[in-house]
Amino acid sequence: MYMAHIELQNQLPGIVGLLTQFKETAKPLSELAQVLLRGDSTLSEGERELIASLVSSRNECKFCMNSHGATASHLLGDDKELVKQVQEDFRSAPISDKMKALLHIAAQVQKGGTHVTDQDISAAKEKGATDKEIHDTVLIAAAFCMYNRYVDGLGTFAPDDEEAYEEHGKVLATEGYLRYS
Amino acid sequence: MYMAHIELQNQLPGIVGLLTQFKETAKPLSELAQVLLRGDSTLSEGERELIASLVSSRNECKFCMNSHGATASHLLGDDKELVKQVQEDFRSAPISDKMKALLHIAAQVQKGGTHVTDQDISAAKEKGATDKEIHDTVLIAAAFCMYNRYVDGLGTFAPDDEEAYEEHGKVLATEGYLRYS
Repeated sequence: MYMAHIELQNQLPGIVGLLTQFKETAKPLSELAQVLLRGDSTLSEGERELIASLVSSRNECKFCMNSHGATASHLLGDDKELVKQVQEDFRSAPISDKMKALLHIAAQVQKGGTHVTDQDISAAKEKGATDKEIHDTVLIAAAFCMYNRYVDGLGTFAPDDEEAYEEHGKVLATEGYLRYS
Repeated sequence: MYMAHIELQNQLPGIVGLLTQFKETAKPLSELAQVLLRGDSTLSEGERELIASLVSSRNECKFCMNSHGATASHLLGDDKELVKQVQEDFRSAPISDKMKALLHIAAQVQKGGTHVTDQDISAAKEKGATDKEIHDTVLIAAAFCMYNRYVDGLGTFAPDDEEAYEEHGKVLATEGYLRYS
């Protein structure tokens, strides 16, 4: 039996086991994910999941990068090639210049908030990004720096089985995040 | 007039300006801070603010490290010397061995979730830390990796004036976090 850093009363993987056990914090954590990734936005749900999967990949959070990668693929009708390309080198991926500029900002946020420069912001605005899109990109990236650390800092279980993420991604794509709150 | 990376409709500093403008995300962000820093816990509110101020200091987030440092000082009846010592070298600070072990875990989380080792967890448990205290320490540290990045990733204003943080810290110590939601 896999053992996390603390005793869990369930065998659910990643953040799911934590949200199931710690209800008080699960509520705002789930609501934040829901508003950021499923709330009103001019960025599509798939684009926002791409940001989440890139940041999780940079944080080397296996559970989150695979879960949100699968969710992004499901929402974008992608055969997983796009998500893989974005995680490996988003600049060469077949996405808009605006998305590339926003993913660059997200990657800077992953390193630390002060890594985002005026030039990074100007470049995104030149490619058509609005203030709200920049706000949401920064906060999605920042939030995944939290979720990733929560999942790995407590040593939770991440399945090896790709099918598990497929299934989880489909559920997140169709049902969203409030089911865990 | 100070300009953040995006246009704000107010001149409020740090995360306060963001929470005031972006209400949908302010709600879960504020509720999360409230439950983590003011909810039921065997860690005192002052101890939890110390964790927040250490992580903010490691992330070099001027607004958060000063605000939560001032809040911790207010709650602990400290003349600021303790908070300064904790931020500079918590191992030599006059705090319990359990708090040192938890602050070490928080410092590892700041680097990244996978930096927390079985040995770090065992050391904290040996000093009397419970699973819930370890959970809360990891999630507080992770959450401040988000708040710090939100504040700095959007280039918000951080006052130089120590008095501003004193005032803010007193308000956070006495009124908590729901006032911004």
